Amino acid sequence: MIIVLKQHAPQEFVDMLMSSIKAKGVQIDVSKGARKTILGLVGNTSVIDREQIAGYEYVDKVIRVEEPYKRASRTFHPADTVIDVGGVQIGGKKLAVIAGPCSVETPEQIEGVAQAIKAAGATMLRGGAFKPRTSPYSFQGLQDKGLDMLCQAGKKAHLPVVTEIMSADKIDLFLKDDVDIIQIGARNMQNFELLKAVGKTRKPVLLKRGLSATIEEWLMSAEYIMAGGNRNVILCERGIRTFETYTRNTLDLSAVLAVKHKSHLPIVVDPSHATGKRWMVEALSKAAIAAGADGVMIEVHNNPDKALCDGAQSITPDMFARLMDSLRQLAPIVGREL
Amino acid sequence: MIIVLKQHAPQEFVDMLMSSIKAKGVQIDVSKGARKTILGLVGNTSVIDREQIAGYEYVDKVIRVEEPYKRASRTFHPADTVIDVGGVQIGGKKLAVIAGPCSVETPEQIEGVAQAIKAAGATMLRGGAFKPRTSPYSFQGLQDKGLDMLCQAGKKAHLPVVTEIMSADKIDLFLKDDVDIIQIGARNMQNFELLKAVGKTRKPVLLKRGLSATIEEWLMSAEYIMAGGNRNVILCERGIRTFETYTRNTLDLSAVLAVKHKSHLPIVVDPSHATGKRWMVEALSKAAIAAGADGVMIEVHNNPDKALCDGAQSITPDMFARLMDSLRQLAPIVGREL
Amino acid sequence: MIIVLKQHAPQEFVDMLMSSIKAKGVQIDVSKGARKTILGLVGNTSVIDREQIAGYEYVDKVIRVEEPYKRASRTFHPADTVIDVGGVQIGGKKLAVIAGPCSVETPEQIEGVAQAIKAAGATMLRGGAFKPRTSPYSFQGLQDKGLDMLCQAGKKAHLPVVTEIMSADKIDLFLKDDVDIIQIGARNMQNFELLKAVGKTRKPVLLKRGLSATIEEWLMSAEYIMAGGNRNVILCERGIRTFETYTRNTLDLSAVLAVKHKSHLPIVVDPSHATGKRWMVEALSKAAIAAGADGVMIEVHNNPDKALCDGAQSITPDMFARLMDSLRQLAPIVGREL
Amino acid sequence: MIIVLKQHAPQEFVDMLMSSIKAKGVQIDVSKGARKTILGLVGNTSVIDREQIAGYEYVDKVIRVEEPYKRASRTFHPADTVIDVGGVQIGGKKLAVIAGPCSVETPEQIEGVAQAIKAAGATMLRGGAFKPRTSPYSFQGLQDKGLDMLCQAGKKAHLPVVTEIMSADKIDLFLKDDVDIIQIGARNMQNFELLKAVGKTRKPVLLKRGLSATIEEWLMSAEYIMAGGNRNVILCERGIRTFETYTRNTLDLSAVLAVKHKSHLPIVVDPSHATGKRWMVEALSKAAIAAGADGVMIEVHNNPDKALCDGAQSITPDMFARLMDSLRQLAPIVGREL
Repeated sequence: MIIVLKQHAPQEFVDMLMSSIKAKGVQIDVSKGARKTILGLVGNTSVIDREQIAGYEYVDKVIRVEEPYKRASRTFHPADTVIDVGGVQIGGKKLAVIAGPCSVETPEQIEGVAQAIKAAGATMLRGGAFKPRTSPYSFQGLQDKGLDMLCQAGKKAHLPVVTEIMSADKIDLFLKDDVDIIQIGARNMQNFELLKAVGKTRKPVLLKRGLSATIEEWLMSAEYIMAGGNRNVILCERGIRTFETYTRNTLDLSAVLAVKHKSHLPIVVDPSHATGKRWMVEALSKAAIAAGADGVMIEVHNNPDKALCDGAQSITPDMFARLMDSLRQLAPIVGREL
Repeated sequence: MIIVLKQHAPQEFVDMLMSSIKAKGVQIDVSKGARKTILGLVGNTSVIDREQIAGYEYVDKVIRVEEPYKRASRTFHPADTVIDVGGVQIGGKKLAVIAGPCSVETPEQIEGVAQAIKAAGATMLRGGAFKPRTSPYSFQGLQDKGLDMLCQAGKKAHLPVVTEIMSADKIDLFLKDDVDIIQIGARNMQNFELLKAVGKTRKPVLLKRGLSATIEEWLMSAEYIMAGGNRNVILCERGIRTFETYTRNTLDLSAVLAVKHKSHLPIVVDPSHATGKRWMVEALSKAAIAAGADGVMIEVHNNPDKALCDGAQSITPDMFARLMDSLRQLAPIVGREL
Repeated sequence: MIIVLKQHAPQEFVDMLMSSIKAKGVQIDVSKGARKTILGLVGNTSVIDREQIAGYEYVDKVIRVEEPYKRASRTFHPADTVIDVGGVQIGGKKLAVIAGPCSVETPEQIEGVAQAIKAAGATMLRGGAFKPRTSPYSFQGLQDKGLDMLCQAGKKAHLPVVTEIMSADKIDLFLKDDVDIIQIGARNMQNFELLKAVGKTRKPVLLKRGLSATIEEWLMSAEYIMAGGNRNVILCERGIRTFETYTRNTLDLSAVLAVKHKSHLPIVVDPSHATGKRWMVEALSKAAIAAGADGVMIEVHNNPDKALCDGAQSITPDMFARLMDSLRQLAPIVGREL
Repeated sequence: MIIVLKQHAPQEFVDMLMSSIKAKGVQIDVSKGARKTILGLVGNTSVIDREQIAGYEYVDKVIRVEEPYKRASRTFHPADTVIDVGGVQIGGKKLAVIAGPCSVETPEQIEGVAQAIKAAGATMLRGGAFKPRTSPYSFQGLQDKGLDMLCQAGKKAHLPVVTEIMSADKIDLFLKDDVDIIQIGARNMQNFELLKAVGKTRKPVLLKRGLSATIEEWLMSAEYIMAGGNRNVILCERGIRTFETYTRNTLDLSAVLAVKHKSHLPIVVDPSHATGKRWMVEALSKAAIAAGADGVMIEVHNNPDKALCDGAQSITPDMFARLMDSLRQLAPIVGREL
């Protein structure tokens, strides 16, 4: 950590500040410039409250040199983390392909989709039972019943299941029904109480990036989960909010590289939510894999035109099978398998 | 609602679409252009699922003409809503000034601040007991004990209290301790389960705008609360996330005008969180009132340099007293009282 | 300037870097931490190329402590700059109110507006002769003839005139016609050749903030003009581009405070372009003055419904007279005159 | 075009509006709803001024159904445009790979890079002679001399050359020196006078996307060039400005798909400027090609650590050769050649 002092910081203040920092066992190197004095803090600076120091009148800026996350950082865990999900791995050489409908609607629908994506080579089944909707008047998902249908369909198709949780009081239900990956949606990325709650379990968690979350904030949310002892975190890039309105969000594939650089955690990409346009899904899935993602998450619906939510971004099982063919060709080019 | 069809939409599709819409009791006016056909839907279009129609292959776009919120809309409730909070009103001629520290730290601290701001003319006391922090390693607030200290301080100073809730399981505690306004923070603006939970109470709710929430999404979150039967919603503009990094966020004062135009709900402005800089607070408080806000929410700490969080944006009681003097001069110029 | 080296930077590299920096007369304080080495550069660091150093493989980051602008910085020019424009001052106690139509259309129109705003108390006349339009098929302004009409109208009404330049080859015309302030539009804020060209004149320049320009980039563009010897730069905040679509742009009033803090240059606010909505103009003009702006720039058209461009954001002369009344009441409250 | 009227629009106004529209030869279909009246305009609506109508007091909104660009639109030109650049084609099956240094520095440097990239399979040479720099104190390029060196190097290596123009008064020089593609930089995307000037030539123009330009605005800038008669426009996605600060900009690969969908013009991707990080260039080049781009534009410098600008994002000739190998493997997978 580096503290830049203002030009006219009185000596008493500097002395007070330095002794309070040293009292915490942190050493200080002082550089006196013509107009600014710079304090370089050396040692375990995690005990220093950056915000508090930045608040002092005579402090110009406080600059962090070390990352604020530890468990999520590659610095302290150089090897890629590979997470086992019901026998399927995410983060290793083999790509993860998570597919399924936005919402679970009927047992026939979810089982039909599950069989179709399994046949095409998907490795996991997704489907929403608890749906975060902007409007209170929109369909909110089949709730507990939907969760049941999803888990049944996953078992029948021999596919691990991924589904979103919206409040901590449902965790027991998710554990009892044996959901394989608990998803935290973009709107809950900084619902810290929910992060703490899933951090107490040992279930893999798929953590979507918030609509306007920086990569650092996203990794800090992963850190919340990991701080509770659950190291099984999978990140999911799903587009960020920008001024562009043609696509629902702007897919940020450089974030895949940044996450891989900063962290050892696996990362998958969701082109369906990122764009909101089904005709963009295949090309951006390929781009995601080419950029280095550990997998993709795709909305597939047996009858997208009749889907109860997000039909515009869902592809059909046939389109999904073609997408899988493309990914299968692409994978070896980038050192992956499918 | 307006549906624009693509150029080569087959007649069977158009017939199918139109009859399914008419079956819901909605009338259709058809305009056939050279390249596009436009369907104008007339009647109660809230029964039509916009997303689903937008998903059809032959539909070019679906344009909403009516707003998606009803209870929050000024169309159906032309008069300003005035909310009574423990005898103090928000939304009427008198300005609301909510002040207090970021975090409750000790009984002495919160009582000291409460007395000081009361003396300067504040109308409500704020203070955080449950703190949403980006890092799991930062101070998370004094929790239940902090809530107690805050409510005690409010009672002693005869000031209603405002404090943030972070999960639905704390609602009973908030009601028992007689919190006057339950705050929903920016990061929880689309925590729909929490919105539904406070919607079931009749306590006033202060709903902060999300970091990257559009005005429409914000009003939809208000609608979630109101749909549960709780009409006591106060909106709080606290800056949005943009590319500018000099201020923590970008305060959007045109949002005050937009909200007043679209909705009957009261709106206050929080310049402390919007900017993260204490020396900007007074000038932007004046700007907020000049723009038409119903009040401001200000961080005040008796010793900002030692504050356990957000010291950099807190002002001292003396600075607050000067700010109140400015607002008192300004209020009559814009048809307000303080 | 602070250079943070990576953990495993070889000693030869560190020696090479340090000697190349010292060769430029800059001193270095070294802090060796457990994992990072920090070099604090002391002296005239403007001779050091930050980008180049940041490019070295073993450099983690380069942090600038001093601002990159000099002539625009308040550090080296603590007093407010007051600019004289044909006898009217901008930047002093008296507020500047620049008003007029988006486009000059006819001599009658521009003269009519000029007389009306003069009567209401405006201090300068604006009007576009060269119009930057998103579409090549939209009205591009009356060009040279429009410039003539504007200057004539200004002379008749005894108002200095402000108008936009779009290419350097028109500078002679602007000087010959005796335009009082040359405006650089938002889309040309980083048209560096145009900045250099107006920097060679001594005419006051009104520099609009770019649609997505940071405050630092904006001040760097002012620095471009000032580096040419023209110190008469007036900044104009006109809204930035964000994800919000209800207003055309998002007016950033905290930028007014930031500019006043960082620079000695005067700043005015343009609520008409910022919002695109005429009914927001009066309230946001008041907010701008309350925030500390040195003036406002307002679109006024005698017949907004028939305006050849931007009618939706222009106010009528009557509305303008009422706005002036409000500002006249507000000015003394914030230590200003009008 | 669709015009939505407000609820209480008086009949005289509606009649006036409709007759003024019909006078321009445009037909109107009227839909009267319970609260809103909708006018559907049919015919050549390009003669209608949308902004002006939106300005009327009784108009709620005006919605464009047709795109505002014609010559750039795929609707009127369904086949992909293939542009011939000195014998090399952009927009066809063969991928374009444009490579070279940020700045031309010496004849040896630019010739060395040209030979190296040619050997590795690049199809064009880039290099800056006129450099847009944020600071007036940064290296501004070798100007006319640099242009000469670049064109010489291109001829010797048998590579067409691409270089940026910053003001219209240099066009004759660019034509005389036989530059093969004139580049318009991101900061000049809406420098309309420059767009008009290059529109009068018949030289291919590489038009970079502005830092915060929507896809529609970008295509409108292409339209400016094409409206002058120059149909040889190549678009270049180079990242947009968002709140994320880890990368210099956010590369928007969904824009590649959007442009291909909306327009017939070729599009290339510049991952060097988009990210500012050399280690991201190869992976994002692959992602760009996988997404469907017609080529990439890559910064290559023989000695990036000593580059006079943007060293941090330049790759070495060796890294470039490896990148070309990857692209050569990838191309056939996505139906391309290299």
